[in-house]
Amino acid sequence: MASERLKRQIEFICEVDKIKNIFRQSKIHDGSRRENDAEHSWHLALMAFLLYEYSKVPNIDLLKVMKMCLIHDIVEIDAGDTFCYDAKGNLDKLEREQKAADRLFSILPEDQGKELRALWEEFDAMETPEAKFAASMDRLQPVLLNYLNKGGTWQEHHITKDQVVKRNGHINNGAPELWDFVSDLLEDAIAKGYLKESPESK
Amino acid sequence: MASERLKRQIEFICEVDKIKNIFRQSKIHDGSRRENDAEHSWHLALMAFLLYEYSKVPNIDLLKVMKMCLIHDIVEIDAGDTFCYDAKGNLDKLEREQKAADRLFSILPEDQGKELRALWEEFDAMETPEAKFAASMDRLQPVLLNYLNKGGTWQEHHITKDQVVKRNGHINNGAPELWDFVSDLLEDAIAKGYLKESPESK
Repeated sequence: MASERLKRQIEFICEVDKIKNIFRQSKIHDGSRRENDAEHSWHLALMAFLLYEYSKVPNIDLLKVMKMCLIHDIVEIDAGDTFCYDAKGNLDKLEREQKAADRLFSILPEDQGKELRALWEEFDAMETPEAKFAASMDRLQPVLLNYLNKGGTWQEHHITKDQVVKRNGHINNGAPELWDFVSDLLEDAIAKGYLKESPESK
Repeated sequence: MASERLKRQIEFICEVDKIKNIFRQSKIHDGSRRENDAEHSWHLALMAFLLYEYSKVPNIDLLKVMKMCLIHDIVEIDAGDTFCYDAKGNLDKLEREQKAADRLFSILPEDQGKELRALWEEFDAMETPEAKFAASMDRLQPVLLNYLNKGGTWQEHHITKDQVVKRNGHINNGAPELWDFVSDLLEDAIAKGYLKESPESK
């Protein structure tokens, strides 16, 4: 017979399968469909593994960063995905996500529930070097997908460069070299007509 | 201007987005569609994080296990997914996957290409404690999905218990307690009519 501990771990593992049905705004590389949170989280964890040499603070704890990437969107199983440029939807995002965290992380054995909640809160606060770097991955990934999609959600929602810079400037706090890369990419995106110039530049 | 190294890393990160279009036989929890390799890999890495206390060999390198889980199916971008019970498809699997590894890992800077290839080969050989544990996650996850789907691919392909045991017995090498759990689950699956008894038991 499985222990109570293992039963709760397996229940959580089955419950979070629902994240495969939480779809984001960004489309996958070929534009064929929207990306879901499980795919997105896989991509971030892999990117962290490959790019952590660019962390502003050296010698960050890569294992912790990867754990954060894997679990950072789990609360969206209950709270749903809130589009980053949706001002109204972002008003009650925190409350919805706290409630989701209460339910979801309590499925796990207490020690692991606490660990995952702490990781999620650390990620969300964006204060530690690990959280800043993980957040950089979370910002960089949809920029790459939008570029691969010749504008993607930028085009769909008439987003201008200043909005992308405001949203993604966090990358500079976690990984300045990657922010330089993104800055060049945005210029290229404008030149190619994938992204609109900021209103004041017109 | 981005360095040559960063350009190759970003190129690889964009290239592997294709894994989101590689679909497996297993369906997600609600049976609504097949699962893809990115989602599957996310699930394995998270499971490894939550379950590594059950590793047969204690104190395994969890970071290495999680890296293996994230990259173990990348070669399927070129080689495609081979259903584990497809004897014919498994004949030239190794050759197809070696060729895929040559192309895909060479996109990365040399040091990282070598690291990922070594991780993939270690995973595939199933000899080290980390590879055995990662393989256990790779076996356990579709068993859970098939159970959640009231039989799933077992039903679809008329799989019997002896085939599931033969395929998944590896779990016992990596995590004996999890194998005990799976053994009970398979009995329950038979009782519920999700899985057929082995022919010799009839």
